[in-house]
Amino acid sequence: MTPIEAKFARLSTDHAPGQEVRQGNAGLDGLLRGDTLPGTPVDFSHGDVNTSAFAPTPGSLQEFVQGVERGGEQAYTEYRGAADLRLRVAAHLAEFTGAPVDGANELIITPGTQGALFLAIASSVTAGDKVAIVRPDYFANRKLVEFLGGEIVPVDMRHLERDSGAGLDLDQLEAAFKAGVRTFLFSNPNNPAGVVYSPEEIAQIADLARHYDATVIVDQLYSRLLYTGTRYTHLRALPQAPANVITIMGPSKTESLSGYRLGVAFGAAHLIDRMEKLQAIVSLRAPGYCQAVLRTWFQEPAGWMNERIAQHQAIRDDLIRVLRAVPGLAVRAPEAGSYLFPRLPRLAVGLHDFVRILRTQAGVTVTPGTEFSPHADDSIRLNFSQNHAAAVQAIERTAQLIERYRA
Amino acid sequence: MTPIEAKFARLSTDHAPGQEVRQGNAGLDGLLRGDTLPGTPVDFSHGDVNTSAFAPTPGSLQEFVQGVERGGEQAYTEYRGAADLRLRVAAHLAEFTGAPVDGANELIITPGTQGALFLAIASSVTAGDKVAIVRPDYFANRKLVEFLGGEIVPVDMRHLERDSGAGLDLDQLEAAFKAGVRTFLFSNPNNPAGVVYSPEEIAQIADLARHYDATVIVDQLYSRLLYTGTRYTHLRALPQAPANVITIMGPSKTESLSGYRLGVAFGAAHLIDRMEKLQAIVSLRAPGYCQAVLRTWFQEPAGWMNERIAQHQAIRDDLIRVLRAVPGLAVRAPEAGSYLFPRLPRLAVGLHDFVRILRTQAGVTVTPGTEFSPHADDSIRLNFSQNHAAAVQAIERTAQLIERYRA
Repeated sequence: MTPIEAKFARLSTDHAPGQEVRQGNAGLDGLLRGDTLPGTPVDFSHGDVNTSAFAPTPGSLQEFVQGVERGGEQAYTEYRGAADLRLRVAAHLAEFTGAPVDGANELIITPGTQGALFLAIASSVTAGDKVAIVRPDYFANRKLVEFLGGEIVPVDMRHLERDSGAGLDLDQLEAAFKAGVRTFLFSNPNNPAGVVYSPEEIAQIADLARHYDATVIVDQLYSRLLYTGTRYTHLRALPQAPANVITIMGPSKTESLSGYRLGVAFGAAHLIDRMEKLQAIVSLRAPGYCQAVLRTWFQEPAGWMNERIAQHQAIRDDLIRVLRAVPGLAVRAPEAGSYLFPRLPRLAVGLHDFVRILRTQAGVTVTPGTEFSPHADDSIRLNFSQNHAAAVQAIERTAQLIERYRA
Repeated sequence: MTPIEAKFARLSTDHAPGQEVRQGNAGLDGLLRGDTLPGTPVDFSHGDVNTSAFAPTPGSLQEFVQGVERGGEQAYTEYRGAADLRLRVAAHLAEFTGAPVDGANELIITPGTQGALFLAIASSVTAGDKVAIVRPDYFANRKLVEFLGGEIVPVDMRHLERDSGAGLDLDQLEAAFKAGVRTFLFSNPNNPAGVVYSPEEIAQIADLARHYDATVIVDQLYSRLLYTGTRYTHLRALPQAPANVITIMGPSKTESLSGYRLGVAFGAAHLIDRMEKLQAIVSLRAPGYCQAVLRTWFQEPAGWMNERIAQHQAIRDDLIRVLRAVPGLAVRAPEAGSYLFPRLPRLAVGLHDFVRILRTQAGVTVTPGTEFSPHADDSIRLNFSQNHAAAVQAIERTAQLIERYRA
């Protein structure tokens, strides 16, 4: 294998969410038990942005059309995004996170939060650098570090062993810093598990990062979608926050605006400068006309966000009820966002086969846990931002198949 | 300087097109001669997509809106882009380039051609690899190789010494391959000079690449906008084309669709596979709704493209006439695309100062030649996809300031 072949062998997308269509069903026939289960197919690999589920923010398309009508000034923005939009969004994010954001110098608009993650990591990590990554966490985090030639130092999160907080192993994190890690990357709320880090966990992460002079990249994509009783701590706003913090958000998931591919990153100006230099050569800028949709962000109609949260919370509660009735299955009720990460009971088939069986026999698409941690070969991730009734029925079919394939 | 500081120091965007707004006018006062020249400001750093100049393809916004109405299927495509659109676009590109394209496996839709360039280079080059880059050529090519830790082996193009063809130094190219280069990257038509490689040049590039088993990445972004009498050769369609060719195009410039950020790359399936894996972690996919606009590509209304070409040709001819009247200025009339790359006579001020003076005193924004070649510190690039009358007047003001600041 050449060096570049080896590099790309580590970036497999075979089981990544949304890529299921490129998999065949080869070899499945010998494993199948019983008939297919009828019902509306549900693709839990991502949220459903159709009007039957969670449609984009009201007014978003109109803002896009007005952006097209503005012409060149909207099509060709600075690489870091249109100046007026950066100022507008910075003001909202300062209020939301509780600490100032300088829209001129401390914020970049990116093609989705995926773009922001890539730019943030590539601006902090170079070949040979050690990077602490949570297990489980968003699947691309690991791959980004591997693409850049960094060395991953895993830090375990044991969310199933507690009822609140994320359960990050802070001793492992400190050991990682002691071993030379200078970049720590994590999502809060955690993707895939939907758990929120406690104020104490965030404070201790900040203390450690400051002590070891580390850069912290926090993916807060779902931090607007908080369920009743959840207390959320913005690391960047703590008095002991380290100098180099990049916070990533975007009007993508909660707002169902994924089709416009918009994200933002904000934090230390010299890191944002690097991110812009890199954006200039990897994608130039977030799509100009799409940027105009940021005008709707944090300015949704009164009550709209609360209603959306209540709808998600109701789906969450129904799905958790069905899942908890499955003997041997373990799941935390997510405190935020729209992901569930149940650990399944022992099955007679491997996880990747079960995921394909689910799709074939129940019309249910989920993402295998191995995308998020090599240890999670007993877990599946579901995005429950779906039509409520269809999602409940799909989870009932999933529970039936778990029984059918139980070891 | 730390390794990552050194890496980003090589990626400066201070003089990149569109970034002028981040420059100040500090230190210019002592250099200014005479008064400002009145006239409509023209930003030649990119094309003008307003209705007063070259508006987007008819029907493009309607296709976008219909894409939004299709909802989730358009928002969440495979990472390489929507399957139906890939098949449609592949058929057009096969006809256009004269060789088959398998839309299922040999084509990826990217966020702009900038995204395609990054993915193509990053899928071919890893740290320490030697890459041949033309001087002058598109400014990001060099930076992409530097970001990836590759080693640039420059190959000179002497377009001003001839009347047709690009003037690539093929001996230098062969020497580069002999020295270990295994990737060659170039734009045709050339950006910045607008010259088209002759059939003989393309054939010899193909022969050499095949002989040395090299990957060729051809940026053909402007290959639809060919002026009267221009003969264009698609490298990928030659019988001797090497196995690893990636061709890059996009409905961006000629079609004035830059605000949607769409590009495509097509070629060897194993390289497209790598590009998709990488796209999955750097931007996920080209914006889902924007992809729908590809339905208009190569399906413009009858006569629309010919009219657009004729309009650009008329602007080209008028600008060349004004520029050729400037003593000591050298310029090739571009055979395709909308870039001009005049070499200026000797001036009493440095190139970067002259570029800032032009903007300050004449309202004319251009890109300094140093973005395209370290040797081009006497040249400027202009994108003449502009309002015809405003462009001519802006070039007349430019000629006046060349006289005013002549050495």
